[in-house]
Amino acid sequence: VKNEFDFIQNIKKKFRLDKVGDDCAVLPKDGSTDLVITTDMLVEDIDFRVSAAKPETIGHKSLAVSLSDIAAMGALPKWALLSIALEEKLWKTDFLDRFYLGWHTLAQQYGVELVGGDVSRSPDKLVIDSVVGGEVNAGTAVLRSGARPGDLIFVTGSLGGAAGGLRLIERGTPLPTDDERHRSLMKRQLCPQPQIENGLFLREHDLATAMIDISDGLTGDLAHICNASSVGAILEIDAIPIDPNFSALALNDNETLDLTLGGGEDFELLFTIKESNKDRIVGKDFSCIGEITSNAGVIQARRGAHLETLKVVGYRHF
Amino acid sequence: VKNEFDFIQNIKKKFRLDKVGDDCAVLPKDGSTDLVITTDMLVEDIDFRVSAAKPETIGHKSLAVSLSDIAAMGALPKWALLSIALEEKLWKTDFLDRFYLGWHTLAQQYGVELVGGDVSRSPDKLVIDSVVGGEVNAGTAVLRSGARPGDLIFVTGSLGGAAGGLRLIERGTPLPTDDERHRSLMKRQLCPQPQIENGLFLREHDLATAMIDISDGLTGDLAHICNASSVGAILEIDAIPIDPNFSALALNDNETLDLTLGGGEDFELLFTIKESNKDRIVGKDFSCIGEITSNAGVIQARRGAHLETLKVVGYRHF
Repeated sequence: VKNEFDFIQNIKKKFRLDKVGDDCAVLPKDGSTDLVITTDMLVEDIDFRVSAAKPETIGHKSLAVSLSDIAAMGALPKWALLSIALEEKLWKTDFLDRFYLGWHTLAQQYGVELVGGDVSRSPDKLVIDSVVGGEVNAGTAVLRSGARPGDLIFVTGSLGGAAGGLRLIERGTPLPTDDERHRSLMKRQLCPQPQIENGLFLREHDLATAMIDISDGLTGDLAHICNASSVGAILEIDAIPIDPNFSALALNDNETLDLTLGGGEDFELLFTIKESNKDRIVGKDFSCIGEITSNAGVIQARRGAHLETLKVVGYRHF
Repeated sequence: VKNEFDFIQNIKKKFRLDKVGDDCAVLPKDGSTDLVITTDMLVEDIDFRVSAAKPETIGHKSLAVSLSDIAAMGALPKWALLSIALEEKLWKTDFLDRFYLGWHTLAQQYGVELVGGDVSRSPDKLVIDSVVGGEVNAGTAVLRSGARPGDLIFVTGSLGGAAGGLRLIERGTPLPTDDERHRSLMKRQLCPQPQIENGLFLREHDLATAMIDISDGLTGDLAHICNASSVGAILEIDAIPIDPNFSALALNDNETLDLTLGGGEDFELLFTIKESNKDRIVGKDFSCIGEITSNAGVIQARRGAHLETLKVVGYRHF
């Protein structure tokens, strides 16, 4: 059974599409600058629920997911295009004004200018396509393909919070909720913060050899780096920084681990650095969670003395 | 009652979005080149029907509509991003391979490279977002805002064919059909040809003072030029080049005229030139259909001695 990654690999080869397959396409802009560009389509009831979030929050997230792709290249976001299709019933409310307010508030925070877009009618579901363009010094965009055996694997911030928030939403937890830990988890799911500053830091100091944002889940996105770099990886399970509020959900240990490894949508950055550079990131909120191996395509997990090969469980649409 | 153009005007003012509102956004690329970029979202059962066209044809059209926006700036298309959401049932067929084949065939014709995109799941309807980037000499992109009183109004090719084709599709005309005139009309609707070469000619020879592609309908798109240029227009009704196959439908005269003025989706170029330049386009398949006036916002139609103010009837989603 094919999934969307197989389809993309297939047309990439068939039609020689060299620029397809990273978080952003990288195009030459001028002698000293490259343009990076990304597109993300969000569909109601697949990627979000209109009933579970305020319109402002949906607006925020639809920009945040694309900013996160820009962050994963180590680039600075500059402009955006926003296309929306919505049904007439929703059009007649203040949804779009509030959606755009949330979008714009995040855009301003990063100096992103809306330069175009499209508003059209949908028979039922709300659909959003979010395109963001950014810039990076020519030839310095951080790709997925630069990881080398011996590199250390790091992640920014903590993982599992977004999956915990989704679990709460699925349980029907009302918003706003009094439980501050629950509120924090739901915010991680509904209102993710793109790691622009961390991405810029890692690229400007020439630290990250490969980078991706965690949208499909830790092991799924690590597999994307391993495939693009023709390497393998060992994850140190006990070193993975689990969102402290996530523990408050009192899931059993297996479930917590599964969601931490496969839950996705944390929009943290997953990156690799040369072992010799590890002292240069001391003091940052980055955790070393493993090491790149020459065992191409194989992702292993170590816990104490126990080493096992992981079945990659990233998010797939198909 | 607001429509989508009101909404866009409103957020444009409120958030000072200077670059929003033409067929493409224009961004500086390097010292001698501007980047133009456009996005179009197509939703099943609003913008197309999966049952009425081959997958290859839907692929062709989803790129053609964006290439047409590039043509309207007088620019050369360069690269594209393609996002698709589709339901699992369609994913399991060869739809996407055939869709992409149609997309790619048109892309190759204009040297457009697919550089990125997104494939995701939709609960039911097929949704496509088509982004195309192009290039133009710095400062020379043809905007909607350059029309001046006394300029002549021209249109490429002929009008009404796409609306005629839509009428046939709505009547349930099967494809392929034996009637060559019907086939031609349905092709205009399903498989439009972007006017890239004409757009480039008009910009390279510094002829078009304003330009737009006819997607919403002749009067609706002329109104966009008039609003952006703060001018009015007189259309010479008998000079409008009606698709000869369109007459084969034997609609009554009023209906033919309504569809020619308001039908949309012909993807011809509507442009204005200085009266003094009219000899420089002799021999091209362009028709002079009127004149720009200083009567800001008023579009009139002349037929013989009769002059009337038109109610603008372009396509609106809301």
